[in-house]
Amino acid sequence: MEEAICEAEKGLSEGGIPIGAVLVKNGTIIGRGHNRRVQNDDPMIHAEIDCLRNTGRIGSYKDCILYSTLMPCFLCAGAVVQFQIPTVIVGESQTFEGAEVFMRSHGIRVTNLNNLRCISMMKRFILDNPDLWNEDIGTL
Amino acid sequence: MEEAICEAEKGLSEGGIPIGAVLVKNGTIIGRGHNRRVQNDDPMIHAEIDCLRNTGRIGSYKDCILYSTLMPCFLCAGAVVQFQIPTVIVGESQTFEGAEVFMRSHGIRVTNLNNLRCISMMKRFILDNPDLWNEDIGTL
Repeated sequence: MEEAICEAEKGLSEGGIPIGAVLVKNGTIIGRGHNRRVQNDDPMIHAEIDCLRNTGRIGSYKDCILYSTLMPCFLCAGAVVQFQIPTVIVGESQTFEGAEVFMRSHGIRVTNLNNLRCISMMKRFILDNPDLWNEDIGTL
Repeated sequence: MEEAICEAEKGLSEGGIPIGAVLVKNGTIIGRGHNRRVQNDDPMIHAEIDCLRNTGRIGSYKDCILYSTLMPCFLCAGAVVQFQIPTVIVGESQTFEGAEVFMRSHGIRVTNLNNLRCISMMKRFILDNPDLWNEDIGTL
């Protein structure tokens, strides 16, 4: 989760939305990324999508764990379900409910760390950038 | 749908997976794309994701219709649900069941054209490239 937070902070320092993700396989980080909506002007590159893109074509995800600083939305949860990533560990879901129920209903193991750094980072960002945040989660 | 099929054929001519999509707003095509797993070596760029990336940041999708030659998978259906694209028109779901039930359960209107060109294009592709197809839908 520390590495996912580093990704989120990197995104923030670039002027972007502070959400980060890493993909771990057998104890090793094999991919990492962060939300790039602002940086790339790209509405599809949420943190988890960026992470999975950067990981490349690995075939099966069956031994993988996806870490994200925030509960995945339906786009990113859809990737988790479609590519059968069995375990997702999230920093928090206090600032955004996300698609936890959907993932669980498809047998994904979801662990929520209720990480205070993740919560305060997102709380401040949403307070300062409500329009950008609403754009990112499709509620404009 | 003709334009989505053109995108799929373009993808095929590039050595890629023949799935195409276009986004229409008030009768005008505002974005288009096709699956780029092979071309870009990118596991996240399904046709609908490519189309939505190419459309750019349009804010609300409430007057939009997404056309795809194939029933969206959970990744792409997740984008539809998260960004509240109200209507999806698909070429077919005979070769791939996709996430139709999931989209409908979130109030998305889904129309299936059972288009014979779409069906035969995908049937042939899957028959000729079973491993690539299974990789694309996460069933390796």
